[in-house]
Amino acid sequence: MDLLPPLINSSHAQMWKLVLAYDGTDFHGWQVQPGLPTIQGELAAAIERVCSERTLPQGSGRTDAGVHALAQVASVALESPIPAPNLLRALNRTLPASIRVLAAAHAPSDFHARHSAVAKQYEYRIYRCEICPPEVARYVYDLAWPLDIAAIHQAAPLVLGMHDFSSFAAVDPDRTARMAVDPDMDNVRTLTHSSWREEGDLLLYTVRGNGFLHRMVRNLVGTFLEIGRGQRSAADLPALIASRNRMAAGATAPARGLFLHSVSYADTEIRDATLA
Amino acid sequence: MDLLPPLINSSHAQMWKLVLAYDGTDFHGWQVQPGLPTIQGELAAAIERVCSERTLPQGSGRTDAGVHALAQVASVALESPIPAPNLLRALNRTLPASIRVLAAAHAPSDFHARHSAVAKQYEYRIYRCEICPPEVARYVYDLAWPLDIAAIHQAAPLVLGMHDFSSFAAVDPDRTARMAVDPDMDNVRTLTHSSWREEGDLLLYTVRGNGFLHRMVRNLVGTFLEIGRGQRSAADLPALIASRNRMAAGATAPARGLFLHSVSYADTEIRDATLA
Repeated sequence: MDLLPPLINSSHAQMWKLVLAYDGTDFHGWQVQPGLPTIQGELAAAIERVCSERTLPQGSGRTDAGVHALAQVASVALESPIPAPNLLRALNRTLPASIRVLAAAHAPSDFHARHSAVAKQYEYRIYRCEICPPEVARYVYDLAWPLDIAAIHQAAPLVLGMHDFSSFAAVDPDRTARMAVDPDMDNVRTLTHSSWREEGDLLLYTVRGNGFLHRMVRNLVGTFLEIGRGQRSAADLPALIASRNRMAAGATAPARGLFLHSVSYADTEIRDATLA
Repeated sequence: MDLLPPLINSSHAQMWKLVLAYDGTDFHGWQVQPGLPTIQGELAAAIERVCSERTLPQGSGRTDAGVHALAQVASVALESPIPAPNLLRALNRTLPASIRVLAAAHAPSDFHARHSAVAKQYEYRIYRCEICPPEVARYVYDLAWPLDIAAIHQAAPLVLGMHDFSSFAAVDPDRTARMAVDPDMDNVRTLTHSSWREEGDLLLYTVRGNGFLHRMVRNLVGTFLEIGRGQRSAADLPALIASRNRMAAGATAPARGLFLHSVSYADTEIRDATLA
């Protein structure tokens, strides 16, 4: 549910697809909040400065405070007849260096960054080192303790497929109440990729699916890490999922290690500056 | 000249050598300033919390606001009989993630991070790309314009050797006045390494010398970049140095691309967590 409808959506407007990268450290997440710096708020302010149009760009999904993006996608309808390269350059001159527009292109009038998305991919970065270099500290979860890497490799694929992921969703009484009366709302999602890999001192988790519940990736990672520490067993994952009980899963991993990696639309995967 | 003498320096005190890395973005430089976050101030506060001792750690040199360090060295005398690994861990638990103590070791009682230093090395990082990824924006000077790389390669060694580097020193009337009455003060420094290299989209400058004047590295880089843009010629460098006139050299390159890389002491180069 969007906080506000787009303020401009007349028949003269051109729909745009914007690809954004951001360092989420200094922002209160994607979604606009009065008086707080947010990605959506900064983007709307930059568009207003460049195009003199008040809009509310729609994201492919909200990212939480501190979560980063390598390729978030936003849609926005603009009246201004500005050429795409000019819009790209002007937005990047206006936005803080912690938010970049990687690409800007026209989109069909019915394009919506969230409704049109068919899949999303996230990456979670863990830095396996006693002392975390300041240069990477904003972008990793630094974790020196020993981990049973074989166990987390074994656990990763056990969350694949279509499941009710309530065990990994942030508890939200409002959402639960809405779900009780809305037959189209549920916590069932399908994961098509879930794997860990090591790159030097980095331990990286990649997960891809048709949608993600609030804090789902960080709760999956937190659960895998408890398996890696021997606090729970990979074999318990099916029962943990079946319980549909947030209390059954692990702690939420810190936001700073999480990156929205890419968003897919019908035949197009938006990753870095790639635009169809 | 130090702002304040160390507050504790009794005969019972043990001298320590600390190696620090930091992201200088959110600090007003190394040197303690009332009411402003500085590296020296954060380190002193962390030592006070860990050891209950008020001290003023001495750095190998001041870094300006926004300048980073891969291996700054600090000396401090402490009464506390704390073992080195415990001091290291306790300081890192207390300091913000943007400052890390990479190593802590006992040092001779006459060790002084600045007075004992015999050489320092800096690295300046330029990112050659139209759109600078938010993840690296804090740590590079992003510069998309075309550069004559051959010209800057040719220029780099022309600053080697012993010179009066007044042309590259920040103008400071107080310092000029002190220099006029103090025969031991001058702007003569010896550079033993000066070179550029390319690593993918990065263009990196390394400079090593027995000492550096205020803003000297950033003024050297700014001058090399003007040579790279064709605004001045490498062949003009000897006359530029000889002029001992700050107005003759190029603009100051931004702080965010500059890293203090390492500090050398007699037979020891302090780089990363290496301690003799």
